[in-house]
Amino acid sequence: MARAIELAERGMNTTAPNPRVGCVLARDGDIIAEGWHEQAGGPHAEVMALAALEDPQAARGAIAYVTLEPCSHHGRTPPCADALVAAGVAEVVIAATDPNPSVNGAGVERLRAAGIACRTGLLGEQAEALNPGFILRMREGRPFVRVKLAQSLDGRIALGNGASQWITGPEARADVQAWRARASAILTGIGTVAMDDPSLNVRLEGHEGQPLRVIVDSRWRTPAAARTLALPGEVLVAGCADEPVPDLLAVSPATLLPLPAAPGTAAGTAPVRVDLHALMAALAARECNEVHVEAGGQLCGALLAAGLVDELMVYIAPCLLGSDGLPSFVLAPLEDMAARPGFDWIDRQMFGDDLRIRLRPQYRDS
Amino acid sequence: MARAIELAERGMNTTAPNPRVGCVLARDGDIIAEGWHEQAGGPHAEVMALAALEDPQAARGAIAYVTLEPCSHHGRTPPCADALVAAGVAEVVIAATDPNPSVNGAGVERLRAAGIACRTGLLGEQAEALNPGFILRMREGRPFVRVKLAQSLDGRIALGNGASQWITGPEARADVQAWRARASAILTGIGTVAMDDPSLNVRLEGHEGQPLRVIVDSRWRTPAAARTLALPGEVLVAGCADEPVPDLLAVSPATLLPLPAAPGTAAGTAPVRVDLHALMAALAARECNEVHVEAGGQLCGALLAAGLVDELMVYIAPCLLGSDGLPSFVLAPLEDMAARPGFDWIDRQMFGDDLRIRLRPQYRDS
Ligand SMILES: NC(=O)c1ccc[n+]([C@@H]2O[C@H](COP(=O)([O-])OP(=O)(O)OC[C@H]3O[C@@H](n4cnc5c(N)ncnc54)[C@H](OP(=O)(O)O)[C@@H]3O)[C@@H](O)[C@H]2O)c1
Ligand SMILES: NC(=O)c1ccc[n+]([C@@H]2O[C@H](COP(=O)([O-])OP(=O)(O)OC[C@H]3O[C@@H](n4cnc5c(N)ncnc54)[C@H](OP(=O)(O)O)[C@@H]3O)[C@@H](O)[C@H]2O)c1
Repeated sequence: MARAIELAERGMNTTAPNPRVGCVLARDGDIIAEGWHEQAGGPHAEVMALAALEDPQAARGAIAYVTLEPCSHHGRTPPCADALVAAGVAEVVIAATDPNPSVNGAGVERLRAAGIACRTGLLGEQAEALNPGFILRMREGRPFVRVKLAQSLDGRIALGNGASQWITGPEARADVQAWRARASAILTGIGTVAMDDPSLNVRLEGHEGQPLRVIVDSRWRTPAAARTLALPGEVLVAGCADEPVPDLLAVSPATLLPLPAAPGTAAGTAPVRVDLHALMAALAARECNEVHVEAGGQLCGALLAAGLVDELMVYIAPCLLGSDGLPSFVLAPLEDMAARPGFDWIDRQMFGDDLRIRLRPQYRDS
Repeated sequence: MARAIELAERGMNTTAPNPRVGCVLARDGDIIAEGWHEQAGGPHAEVMALAALEDPQAARGAIAYVTLEPCSHHGRTPPCADALVAAGVAEVVIAATDPNPSVNGAGVERLRAAGIACRTGLLGEQAEALNPGFILRMREGRPFVRVKLAQSLDGRIALGNGASQWITGPEARADVQAWRARASAILTGIGTVAMDDPSLNVRLEGHEGQPLRVIVDSRWRTPAAARTLALPGEVLVAGCADEPVPDLLAVSPATLLPLPAAPGTAAGTAPVRVDLHALMAALAARECNEVHVEAGGQLCGALLAAGLVDELMVYIAPCLLGSDGLPSFVLAPLEDMAARPGFDWIDRQMFGDDLRIRLRPQYRDS
């Protein structure tokens, strides 16, 4: 199964909106074939593994190790459960069940009904970690949101005058490219677009296609000349439905996504702001699994306050930007230490001179 | 020599104002005796090692490994170079030469004059790292300054309302005790005393004596009832000589240290502030080797701006304190990324849920 997970990882940047899945066929403890899902629309991992057998008869009586429950429905390809039955495997070992409502146990049932032994849960946690976005989208109807920040030792993401290029070194920035590449969407705020005019694209040797780029921009202020709009790939500008769209933006290459205003903000006491829950639902509807956020303190703070941050990834550069530097999270004042947002560590790793830390918000009940 | 360095470390908390020194006597590659400097006023490492020999004659023809150049002057104890000569050792291997102006090569000369072979520099860097404070004090007339901070992921050392207890967990706070214990002085600012009323003492099982506690307090605002004044050990309040001292403070247990005002601050445009270079000179005059700083953003920022921070030690707790939280370093605004203060990493280590990072300021020429 560990090998099947390795195989699944080969599809890291290419399977979206499908999950990353790997499959190993074994007999008497020896691997006889391997497969993984390479690309949405292409064959699933199980079918790839069966096709990799020199002699199709060799599948008879073999054990199939699959990282995700074989599908039971006709999607773009026929059901994999049926393919395994037809091939005559004796047993199927499954790491994680498929939360997709059209599978969700039905794959296992189909196999069992055909007399095939099924076990689930082997390395289940590692297998689920392959597909945090797919799983969250199936279960809760929203993508997995990873917030990336580059900050100084004193927690600043830019100088007081807004300059932030570059806080981190080339190794950290190269690592960011890998995270962008695996995401379905890259999200930023109009504050960052106005200040940095970022490209927000994937610039990896040999990488094909581009994740969706999304600008959160309540009042449709995105300049039609913004650099990101001219690059290959789709750019979505998410604004408030009640705000007027300037003609120049309307005729620009951007796709406009009108959304409701966040509760409370349309009442006039606070500026009108995009409802971030509605935004995430819209991205899930577009089959976005993982959303990679590279935004300023306003949007990062709002995402956290809305409970929409699933992972925090901070590159800490060994420098100070000073007490007038811009904060990483703009949050409402806290009165009490006990109310501070807490996190669990995922990992820590050096990239050149910069330390990358990853954490998971705890969202204490409060 | 590696063993001699280990031995020297046993004196970590007890040799001040003397350096930590270890000594190993060896013959034919076998260690025949060990010693280390335990306490100021007590015998030096070389004498301890010689005394540890069952048969004093065994020193004849042996090799002595010493982490620091043997002294050549009569201090509180007779010169160690003479003791080695008298014992008849054949060779002395020295890691670091002693920057003390009354030694500084004279120990080696004395040994060579007596016909003893001398080598210096073996593991010299590691041996110097035993005594950063002693060395800096001898060379530059100021102590080694280590700034300790406890901060959140967003670089805040307290909530907006000043609350900062506790950002970090018990493991990190226990580690801080060990760093306090090895310091000659613990330094804070009146801002921290006013807000937290900290003890600033060492609370380690079995620890004897207390480092000097120092409050930087230009206008002598330290309350006579401050908790730290009532605890065992000496408290120095460093204020501006031109500012009037309140009677209550004058009769308190605090030792008053009147100092000049920082250049520019007495002119009236900025508030009068203690001259931090004068403060460090005064602490060096009191034979302080390592100064451990636990202060707020004002004093930490001023120390950094004055070029007086030799090491930064930050415990990062996995939480956010928010954008109105207090900054770790109050610094003048930067206009240009190139001017940001840079650091070199020393190390990274987890203490419970908190990450400790240590760095060395680069003080770029600018
Ligand atoms: N170091 C880094 O990792 C990094 C990364 C990105 C940016 N930055 C820096 O961050 C700075 C920009 O920060 P920023 O905070 O102004 O930019 P931001 O967070 O990217 O964008 C904030 C803007 O998003 C819009 N928005 C729409 N709906 C929102 C909602 N529900 N909640 C919050 N905001 C919403 C708001 O403008 P409207 O009300 O007009 O919609 C808001 O002003 C720049 O200096 C940039 O260099 C640094
Ligand atoms: N998390 C942590 O690691 C940690 C550690 C310590 C404190 N804190 C927090 O920090 C906050 C206090 O911060 P703070 O910045 O006000 O306190 P601070 O840095 O401890 O003290 C600042 C004061 O020191 C005096 N001072 C004298 N000479 C100075 C000089 N040359 N440069 C700068 N200051 C000089 C100034 O008052 P005068 O002008 O009156 O002399 C100044 O206001 C508290 O909320 C506390 O909880 C956190």
